[in-house]
Amino acid sequence: MTMDLISARAALAGLLDVADLHDEALQARVQLALDRKTKPQGSLGRLESLALTLARIQGRERPQLQHPQMVVFAADHGLAARGVSAFPSEVTWQMVENFLAGGAAVSVLARQHGLALSVVDAGVKHEFAPRPGLISRKIGWGTADALQEPAMSLAECVAAIETGAGVVRSLPGNALLLGEMGIGNTSAAALLMARLTGEAIDRCTGRGTGVDGPALVRKTEILRQVLARHAEATDPLAALAALGGFEIAMMVGAVLQAAAERRVIVVDGFIVTSAVLVASRLAPAVLQRCVFSHQSDESGHRLMLARLEAEPLLALGLRLGEGSGGALAWPLLESACRILAEMASFEAAGVSDREA
Amino acid sequence: MTMDLISARAALAGLLDVADLHDEALQARVQLALDRKTKPQGSLGRLESLALTLARIQGRERPQLQHPQMVVFAADHGLAARGVSAFPSEVTWQMVENFLAGGAAVSVLARQHGLALSVVDAGVKHEFAPRPGLISRKIGWGTADALQEPAMSLAECVAAIETGAGVVRSLPGNALLLGEMGIGNTSAAALLMARLTGEAIDRCTGRGTGVDGPALVRKTEILRQVLARHAEATDPLAALAALGGFEIAMMVGAVLQAAAERRVIVVDGFIVTSAVLVASRLAPAVLQRCVFSHQSDESGHRLMLARLEAEPLLALGLRLGEGSGGALAWPLLESACRILAEMASFEAAGVSDREA
Repeated sequence: MTMDLISARAALAGLLDVADLHDEALQARVQLALDRKTKPQGSLGRLESLALTLARIQGRERPQLQHPQMVVFAADHGLAARGVSAFPSEVTWQMVENFLAGGAAVSVLARQHGLALSVVDAGVKHEFAPRPGLISRKIGWGTADALQEPAMSLAECVAAIETGAGVVRSLPGNALLLGEMGIGNTSAAALLMARLTGEAIDRCTGRGTGVDGPALVRKTEILRQVLARHAEATDPLAALAALGGFEIAMMVGAVLQAAAERRVIVVDGFIVTSAVLVASRLAPAVLQRCVFSHQSDESGHRLMLARLEAEPLLALGLRLGEGSGGALAWPLLESACRILAEMASFEAAGVSDREA
Repeated sequence: MTMDLISARAALAGLLDVADLHDEALQARVQLALDRKTKPQGSLGRLESLALTLARIQGRERPQLQHPQMVVFAADHGLAARGVSAFPSEVTWQMVENFLAGGAAVSVLARQHGLALSVVDAGVKHEFAPRPGLISRKIGWGTADALQEPAMSLAECVAAIETGAGVVRSLPGNALLLGEMGIGNTSAAALLMARLTGEAIDRCTGRGTGVDGPALVRKTEILRQVLARHAEATDPLAALAALGGFEIAMMVGAVLQAAAERRVIVVDGFIVTSAVLVASRLAPAVLQRCVFSHQSDESGHRLMLARLEAEPLLALGLRLGEGSGGALAWPLLESACRILAEMASFEAAGVSDREA
C-alpha cells in the first residue's frame, strides 16, 4: 500500500486537533495564590512559572500529578550501519533488556521517583520474550537506510504515530515522561531539526554517544547527503518518514495523544525534543502541555530548544537520553504542585507582608 | 568579658583543624565504576562529578546518604532598622513560626524529600514557646547596628560558632542541609563578601527580598558606610563579628563541625554561601565537603560562587533562602548515590561497549 500526504493527514486528523489552552482568569488566580504565599513575590523563580504551566495544562488552581508514566520508545536505524554512532546497533536491544532488568540509568531514576516504567519496542532488530513492562509494537525490524531510501514509508510513519497514541491511551495517569533508545537516533533527530528549522546540518549534529574528531566530520557529511537525497521531504510528516525513526514517530503520536488528554508532557533531551518539534509542526498547541526538563550536552539541543522558545529546568551536562533528564527533573514538578497546595499564605500564617 | 583574636582562635582551635581529603586511588576506582556503567562515558554529566564528590567526602566507593538534616538558623539584625530590607524585622519570628507550623517553602520541600527539619533560634528578637523542631540557642536579641558598633562582640561570635557546631553534633545523619532566616541578612552576607573577597560593595549588594530602585541605592550606600566604619576588621573572625549575624556565625560553626565529621554539606543561596566563605577562610578544606545546590538570583551570588570555584547544581532563579535551593537539589544527591549503587555495568548487563 502506498499513501500520499493528503490521505496520511486525513488518517491522523483526529490526533492533529489539539485545542489551544487559554484561561486568563485561571492564570490570574494562580498568580495571585502564588503571590500570597509566605515568600517575597517571585522568589521561587522557575518553580512559580512551572506551577502556572501545570495549572494551565490541568485547568485548575491546584494541579496534581497522578500515576506518572515513563515510557521509553526503542527502535533501530538503518543509518547506523553507516557508522554514525560510537556503539553498534545491537546495543539497542541489549539496553532494552537492561531497562527491563532495572539496571539502566532511567530504570534507577524511575524507581527513585516512583515513575512507572514501560519500554515500547517500536522497531528493534531483535525478538524479545514477552514480559511485564515491555510493550511490543514493532513497526519493522529497524528503519531503512535513509541514505538510499526513506527511513520508513508514509504508511509506516502513520502507523507508528497511531501506535504511539494508542500506547498513551492505554496507560493511566496525567503525566507522561518520554524517553528513547535507538543507536543512530541522534542522527535522525539532527536530520529532522535541520529540515524543519532550516539550521545548517553541522549546527544540528553532535557527538551523540561519543562520536568526535574525524568521525564527527564523517557523521555530518553523511547527514548532509541524506538531506540532499530527500530534498523534497519538507512537509513535517514527509520529513518524519524520510529522516526519522520508528521510536521518534511513535513519540510524535504519544505527544499528540497526551496533549489531547491534557497530560503533562515531560520532554527529555535531543531526540525527544525532535519528536516534540515534529508534533508542534503538526499541532502547535502541543507545546502548551510540555515541560522541558533539561538542556542536553548534545550540541544541537540548545539551539533546538531556542527554536521552540523552551526554557529547560536543568542543565547538568547530560547526554544520555533514555528519559534520564525527565526523571531527574520530575521532583521539581512535584515541588511546584506542593508549593500551591501546601504553602501558607501571609494571612493564614500571620506573617507581615512587605511594607508598602 | 572582652576577647582578642588570638584567644578567639585559640578557643576555636579544635574546630579549625579540618583535614584535607585526598585519596587518588579511591577516586580512580569510583571513576572506573562510573565508566563501566551502561552508558556512554561521562554522559551523566554533573551527576557523575557529584558521585565522585560524595564518594570523596565519605571515603568509600558507594556513598550513602542517611538521616539528612535540614537546619534553618534564624536571627535578627540591628542593621534592619536602617531600612535595608523590604520586610520588617518581625517577619523573622513570624517565619520561624511558619517553618515550625509546616507552611513555609522549606517546610513543604523538606517534607517532600524526607528531610528532618530543625529551626535554630540563634538570636531572634522574640520569645518562642518551646516545641519539637525548635532548638533555642539565642546568643542575643538580634545583633547590634553595625553602622554604629560591631554587630556582635568577638566573644559572642565565638559562642555562636561553638553553638552552631554543637547543634550539628547533636543531630544524627551524614548530610547537613543549611538554611537561614533573618530580615536584613543579605546585607550581612554582602558585607562579608565585600570584606573577604575585596569585591566592590555594589557588586555584592542585591535586592534581597525585594529592594530595588532608589532603595537599593540607599542599601548599598549604608553598606559602604558600614564597611568604612569597620575598616580594621580584616581577619575572617573579626569581619564575621563586626559585619555578620548570629545565624551566619552559627552556620560557620555548623560547617566546621560537619566538615570535621565528613558530613555532606548542602549549601543553599547567598547567605549560606557567605557562611561557607567565612568558614573556608578559617579552614579551607571545608570546601571539599560542600555541594553547592543552586545559583541564586541574588546578584552577588554568582560572583561569590565563582570566588569559591563552586559549580552550583541548579539555576532556577530562586531568591528565597530558607534552605529552599538545597532541598530542591537534594534528589540529585540521592540520584548520584543510586547511579553508583544500582546501575548495571556493561559486563553484568551483557551490553556491548563502544567499538574501539
